Amino acid sequence: MSTEGKTITCKAAVAWGAAQDLSIEDVEVAPPKAHEVRIQVYYTGVCHTDAYMMSGKDPEGAFPIIPGHEGAGIVESVGEGVTNVKPGDNVVALYTAECKECKFCKSGKTNLCGAVRATQGKGVMPDGTSRFKCKGKDLLHFMGCSTFSQYTVVADVSVVAITDKAPMDRTCLLGCGITTGYGAAVITAGKGGIEKGATVAVFGAGCVGLSVIQGAVKNGASKIITVDVNDAKKEWAQKFGSTDFVNPAKDLKEGETIQSRLVDMTDGGLDYTFDCTGNVHVMRSALEACHKGWGESIIIGVAAAGQEISTRPFQLVTGRVWKGCAFGGVKGRTQLPDLVDDYMNGKLKVDEFITHRQPLSGINSAFHDMHSGDCIRCVVDMRTL
Amino acid sequence: MSTEGKTITCKAAVAWGAAQDLSIEDVEVAPPKAHEVRIQVYYTGVCHTDAYMMSGKDPEGAFPIIPGHEGAGIVESVGEGVTNVKPGDNVVALYTAECKECKFCKSGKTNLCGAVRATQGKGVMPDGTSRFKCKGKDLLHFMGCSTFSQYTVVADVSVVAITDKAPMDRTCLLGCGITTGYGAAVITAGKGGIEKGATVAVFGAGCVGLSVIQGAVKNGASKIITVDVNDAKKEWAQKFGSTDFVNPAKDLKEGETIQSRLVDMTDGGLDYTFDCTGNVHVMRSALEACHKGWGESIIIGVAAAGQEISTRPFQLVTGRVWKGCAFGGVKGRTQLPDLVDDYMNGKLKVDEFITHRQPLSGINSAFHDMHSGDCIRCVVDMRTL
Repeated sequence: MSTEGKTITCKAAVAWGAAQDLSIEDVEVAPPKAHEVRIQVYYTGVCHTDAYMMSGKDPEGAFPIIPGHEGAGIVESVGEGVTNVKPGDNVVALYTAECKECKFCKSGKTNLCGAVRATQGKGVMPDGTSRFKCKGKDLLHFMGCSTFSQYTVVADVSVVAITDKAPMDRTCLLGCGITTGYGAAVITAGKGGIEKGATVAVFGAGCVGLSVIQGAVKNGASKIITVDVNDAKKEWAQKFGSTDFVNPAKDLKEGETIQSRLVDMTDGGLDYTFDCTGNVHVMRSALEACHKGWGESIIIGVAAAGQEISTRPFQLVTGRVWKGCAFGGVKGRTQLPDLVDDYMNGKLKVDEFITHRQPLSGINSAFHDMHSGDCIRCVVDMRTL
Repeated sequence: MSTEGKTITCKAAVAWGAAQDLSIEDVEVAPPKAHEVRIQVYYTGVCHTDAYMMSGKDPEGAFPIIPGHEGAGIVESVGEGVTNVKPGDNVVALYTAECKECKFCKSGKTNLCGAVRATQGKGVMPDGTSRFKCKGKDLLHFMGCSTFSQYTVVADVSVVAITDKAPMDRTCLLGCGITTGYGAAVITAGKGGIEKGATVAVFGAGCVGLSVIQGAVKNGASKIITVDVNDAKKEWAQKFGSTDFVNPAKDLKEGETIQSRLVDMTDGGLDYTFDCTGNVHVMRSALEACHKGWGESIIIGVAAAGQEISTRPFQLVTGRVWKGCAFGGVKGRTQLPDLVDDYMNGKLKVDEFITHRQPLSGINSAFHDMHSGDCIRCVVDMRTL
């Protein structure tokens, strides 16, 4: 019996308030309006950005809300005017939309898109309303995705179809973490990716940091130094191709800073450094570990609200560059299908990131897993309670 | 009678200590050693960097010293092994050396050169000694140039020969201010200069800022907004091609910041902004006035010791780029002759910057002139007492 045009009642993990566990609820998911797509979510990752919002520390966070932004599934139905996907398509939800028509999309200079930015930030669909209801209340959408629901509705500019053959329990991770790090290395860094032979330092070896390493290896970096306060990450980093490891909490000598150590290890500093921690002090170290004259530091991590980065301007006047990116600089609709193909052809590691799995009913455990040091990514099976 | 190989006694403006007027003294200038060049300085500009060092606020400043780094003259004699210039050559001194052999010079990515950096920073020649004596004491060299002496000695990598026809009272200004701003616009910005049609904001309309405007005009910028707290600079900026002017001390409405005003004036922010003030708060405004997704802010001004720039990392994560340059990113020996040719062919304004002139004996007045609002550049005639 077709569900098209009808409200679907399904399970979702709802955040009713700040710093509370998620609650598995029956939610009503309205059919997609014009230029909207309803997706049956098969798998979702859990990410630090979800945890940050759920913690209540994000001043823009609002409740009740259905979190989740790293999801893969099958299109259930589409609203009027949708042409880029059709029911049955294997899709990945995109928290960084791509309308291909706005000033940003047409600039050729950025993957940020202005189409749904304002309403997405407010937790609603482009028409200003929600498609989720629970216990008579509207629930907010998160990052335009809300993949912690068995069914979700997204804008058509916020979804991309990929090959039917790609396994959704892997492709969900291309919706955020892997793409974010990999893209930063192969798209954002330099004038279109790290150059062959370049030296690289990666601060923080979680999913994003390991993905930067993967991108650096792909582009032929000559040295890839991983910096992490957790020694267990050394083996992980090596597995992805990192050549050196420094634990700044243990390995520094008297009077050494992490930046001075890195400068010493690289005859003057790195060509590229990446912050994958969200810690503003680490961001400064990453910049200052760059080589004078040309070193570039790329901020990927999301800092807590109100925190600021600083450095002496001399660092920039002497040729270092400070930049950043969201979603790795990857245009979701244009470039994500290629990343999926790379995965299918054995050119992009994805399976290796999955250390934990949970059913939907174990989603709170997935967050506990994430905060433990041995978890890279936990994939949640949304169809299993 | 040739002076080659002999010590020359001549007049120089000496800074004996911090925050003192310069003192015109008889100084002894030793002949150039191997890979050194002795120059008869005809004309020198005075620059804020000289003033900053002389003020004693620069923690690296040391005395006694002969300041000056914006000078033109004629080669008097050369030491052993010098091949790039010969006696009689019309030259400009280079505080940013170019050896063409070090890691930096060979990188193709920066105009910074490592050849004489360490000794230049200490105020001595590459062999660790000074060529200047006064009253029995060694005097320090400044920025590898010391153009406030009628004769000076510089490293051969710190001087470039230009066409004999170029008037030295103009070319001296290409030794710092004009080149610094112009180069920032046509070399450092973007991937090799501002693109045609780009929008630009210039903070601070002194010699450097006006030179940025000149570079932006040359590269076809569509809008050039000048920001200065001195209304008199509006006319100056227009003369060089600026299209708009904002005085942040007077023109802002209730609740407006300079960055919000600029963002409103440009449908989302500037493609390029340039700080030519050295004020770290202005540097922040300049960054935050950039367009999301691609706006680049270039720091040119030199901040006071210990001061730091800061911003929210979100500014960079959403695609803004923070960078900087010294000497505009221009390689002195390779690229300065072309700038001189541009001047000779009427393609580069230089004469227009000269608002004041002084004889050597009036050099303290030149600094007073500089601090007055109506001075762009004061040229000092080193041969007239």
